[in-house]
Amino acid sequence: MKHIGIITKKGEPKAIGLVGRLLPWFAERGYETCPDNDTARHLGVAGRPASELPDISDIIIVFGGDGTLLSAARLVGGRGIPILGVNLGGLGFMAEVPVDEVPEAIENALRGSCTIEERVMLQASVFRDGKRIDQHSVLNDVVINKGALARIVAIDTAVDGRYLTTFHSDGLIVSTPTGSTAYSLSAGGPILYPTLNSLILTPICPHLLANRPIVLPDDFTISMTIASGEDVFLTMDGQVGFPLHPGDVVEVVKSPHVTRLLIPCERDYFQVLRSKLKWGER
Amino acid sequence: MKHIGIITKKGEPKAIGLVGRLLPWFAERGYETCPDNDTARHLGVAGRPASELPDISDIIIVFGGDGTLLSAARLVGGRGIPILGVNLGGLGFMAEVPVDEVPEAIENALRGSCTIEERVMLQASVFRDGKRIDQHSVLNDVVINKGALARIVAIDTAVDGRYLTTFHSDGLIVSTPTGSTAYSLSAGGPILYPTLNSLILTPICPHLLANRPIVLPDDFTISMTIASGEDVFLTMDGQVGFPLHPGDVVEVVKSPHVTRLLIPCERDYFQVLRSKLKWGER
Amino acid sequence: MKHIGIITKKGEPKAIGLVGRLLPWFAERGYETCPDNDTARHLGVAGRPASELPDISDIIIVFGGDGTLLSAARLVGGRGIPILGVNLGGLGFMAEVPVDEVPEAIENALRGSCTIEERVMLQASVFRDGKRIDQHSVLNDVVINKGALARIVAIDTAVDGRYLTTFHSDGLIVSTPTGSTAYSLSAGGPILYPTLNSLILTPICPHLLANRPIVLPDDFTISMTIASGEDVFLTMDGQVGFPLHPGDVVEVVKSPHVTRLLIPCERDYFQVLRSKLKWGER
Amino acid sequence: MKHIGIITKKGEPKAIGLVGRLLPWFAERGYETCPDNDTARHLGVAGRPASELPDISDIIIVFGGDGTLLSAARLVGGRGIPILGVNLGGLGFMAEVPVDEVPEAIENALRGSCTIEERVMLQASVFRDGKRIDQHSVLNDVVINKGALARIVAIDTAVDGRYLTTFHSDGLIVSTPTGSTAYSLSAGGPILYPTLNSLILTPICPHLLANRPIVLPDDFTISMTIASGEDVFLTMDGQVGFPLHPGDVVEVVKSPHVTRLLIPCERDYFQVLRSKLKWGER
Repeated sequence: MKHIGIITKKGEPKAIGLVGRLLPWFAERGYETCPDNDTARHLGVAGRPASELPDISDIIIVFGGDGTLLSAARLVGGRGIPILGVNLGGLGFMAEVPVDEVPEAIENALRGSCTIEERVMLQASVFRDGKRIDQHSVLNDVVINKGALARIVAIDTAVDGRYLTTFHSDGLIVSTPTGSTAYSLSAGGPILYPTLNSLILTPICPHLLANRPIVLPDDFTISMTIASGEDVFLTMDGQVGFPLHPGDVVEVVKSPHVTRLLIPCERDYFQVLRSKLKWGER
Repeated sequence: MKHIGIITKKGEPKAIGLVGRLLPWFAERGYETCPDNDTARHLGVAGRPASELPDISDIIIVFGGDGTLLSAARLVGGRGIPILGVNLGGLGFMAEVPVDEVPEAIENALRGSCTIEERVMLQASVFRDGKRIDQHSVLNDVVINKGALARIVAIDTAVDGRYLTTFHSDGLIVSTPTGSTAYSLSAGGPILYPTLNSLILTPICPHLLANRPIVLPDDFTISMTIASGEDVFLTMDGQVGFPLHPGDVVEVVKSPHVTRLLIPCERDYFQVLRSKLKWGER
Repeated sequence: MKHIGIITKKGEPKAIGLVGRLLPWFAERGYETCPDNDTARHLGVAGRPASELPDISDIIIVFGGDGTLLSAARLVGGRGIPILGVNLGGLGFMAEVPVDEVPEAIENALRGSCTIEERVMLQASVFRDGKRIDQHSVLNDVVINKGALARIVAIDTAVDGRYLTTFHSDGLIVSTPTGSTAYSLSAGGPILYPTLNSLILTPICPHLLANRPIVLPDDFTISMTIASGEDVFLTMDGQVGFPLHPGDVVEVVKSPHVTRLLIPCERDYFQVLRSKLKWGER
Repeated sequence: MKHIGIITKKGEPKAIGLVGRLLPWFAERGYETCPDNDTARHLGVAGRPASELPDISDIIIVFGGDGTLLSAARLVGGRGIPILGVNLGGLGFMAEVPVDEVPEAIENALRGSCTIEERVMLQASVFRDGKRIDQHSVLNDVVINKGALARIVAIDTAVDGRYLTTFHSDGLIVSTPTGSTAYSLSAGGPILYPTLNSLILTPICPHLLANRPIVLPDDFTISMTIASGEDVFLTMDGQVGFPLHPGDVVEVVKSPHVTRLLIPCERDYFQVLRSKLKWGER
């Protein structure tokens, strides 16, 4: 691992400042670093478009919250470059490394004494009139959501070709284990251990109180058809939006790719849960 | 009660058919009926705009679901005309009279042997840059909701001038007891007995799991300021929409008006609950 | 207010130490204090049984958590002596005064510059074979609960003589607004503003997912009949237990008495909510 | 499959009657049947203790609800005899065959045209002072529950030797996917597809609202230590009870055995969900 790509949360001075202080530290140790163009411009150094960083990096370090990390995961796509997330103080579950542990964590990561956790991604395709018109991979979740002024959306849902039910709700979340602590949790979903081969279907404010979240094997195909509802949108990892029409079908399968997260060795998932969800310590 | 205004769910043939069969029945008994224009046109009789019906009616009969009844309540506004809701088979909590009991219920209502239940309404005002720019009364709920593509909305909430909290969520519902079985219930709120002098604050998919619904006296003023969030909307009774900007303040107080619902004597609220929520019978 | 009764959490050295330091402070200011016997013995001073303190006190100061305060409220019963709760570090919603603000709060209380909040109490009676065999007043909640080895309890529930439903669950909570942040909250109930004239019916782990908590006017009579279930118990304020048999009826009405809580003026209920439920500050 | 063991719900006349009508039907087809002693006595035929039936049967048919099926699964233990569950009208998720489809389902089962679904079981061991004092296998759930008069139980929970948290609650459920639609669902847990290699930890009425259910890989060891709490019990599949003391450790691992359920071919799990949870049909 010699080439390090650096991506920061857009417009976050804390991230810029931190990267500025770390660049000489990397250089001293013989690592080549390349920040995304926006970061580079702030620091007065050479950069590259974020989208090109996966091509030239052995590792990507993300300075920001889970949102920035989700973007980076999408840029990496199927190339398998490991990502190290640095948390700038927000509520991130994935961007785990606190600022004051950054040099140590990076050093450990670069000499391999840390865990690489492979996180399942989902691939969502949109079909209209039988033709695929959009496709994206996500690390957290695929969300069908009604607009603020719409009443309710009805979503015919099938699992591996078998009819499950028609959800009448504000929307429906298909979440990976990684995404289980994000939107799905707010909508009443359970926490899934990150390495489980499962996905969750969590309806958002369902009309029927018995419509509880369902955990399914992640090799099942989830097929969701907009039965009725205007002003409906598909969002992927909370970042990419796509308007849906009645009759559109959103099909979700396990992605052939995974996101490879660098996890500091001394950190375990339950510690993150306790800290982020304020469960307190013993 | 001599003059009867009739409002039907727009485009619902079942409602039109039923009204068509009932018109002669009313005439025989000496009642003057006036349907809304849309219904009248379908039936080939004289009608009036729905908005004028409260001016000329002693009672308004609504054929449709809760949505149609909510519209009628808004048209009636402060004039106190009692409303009788006829349920056409949907999930209405307010439009209680089933189709086959309509003549009997109407007869009872017209000769006064039924209960008039006064339902509290809320009045929502929107302030921008210190000026009131919108105001509406609702029977069910005032909802601040983010759009489908927005991330989260932050709403600074104060109660009678005292800071409550800043909700980070998909939105926030201020509901009357009447509205407690509508959107608020789907979002995790409790059921409120319809005559309670209370309102509920129910956050929609709050980021913080401890942000549970709160029941407050209905003479408290609820003040909600959009702290941050783009693509945010105010909806009132699920029908009127209004775009909100950061800094806008939505103030909710008890309305000076009530909606007067005609409740068939032999029907009680718990029966409606059991039936609508499928609680089963003894 | 010259005579001060003092009750501490049993066996809590922190409480004893604090009272020991405060006794001279009261004496200097001309107040007569009388601790409960247990506290008195630890401090080597004269005391009285806790049950007699309401007879001789103008105010009762409770050092402990909400449990100790609930006991004191039961001892006071209908005599209306105001209670000031001192929080020793736990999670109390009622015992609000933090240790380091005790002298100031007491001084304010004694000279009347604080709020006295009247909290509704409930009165639970148990009827077996038509005869009343037990009766208690509570400030928080009346709970019907199955034992750990029992399967499920079926509770026929009527409100003001009207059948509501038969709950099949682990149990059923009838809670005051004061109790809404205690057991009922853990079981999925809403938060009720403490001065509301309402009570909540919250089923515990109901078999039917649609059996949501219901808020009712507190002048309704709640009548709960054990339809089936062995090993069933009634608990009142988590402190008094009573075994119930199939056919037993538990009737809950508003108590003729209230508990009068002394609330420091600078403290408001929303501040308590934010702090206790970790909602964070602005 | 020639030898058929028959187990009925104790004291259920419907079950006895059905078996009585089916015995000649089995005999005509050349199958040897043996009912449990209790059933045999009611029918005036020869029987055997239920516990011996797994030794002499190729298949066991259970007439009753999920409770009877759970007992049968425990009797079968590690011997792998497939079980066919006949539903007598209750809410069973596992006892799926309705009465009027029994002959057809049995015929299909006996000639092999049905699915055998292997359901994961859990094995719970209790350790006191370092010694194992009890051990059981379950198909649904292992539950630690406080008694009705106890306040709260504190359970230190570790997963594969890593500390998770200390739950302060009414209790804690460790459920298989099969058990996810039983007690865990009532306590707020998600639905797990029955073939998932997962288990759920669902706290019962947790004090901390952020203590949400967690889904974990089923090859993790769950270790629960009673940190404090009197009147605490362990129940297994709602049937076997065991008193626990502070300091006792309950360890749950995946059982080496599975329960083999005979599933009628034309029936799928989602159909059962829709029917049992009243989700309605399209």
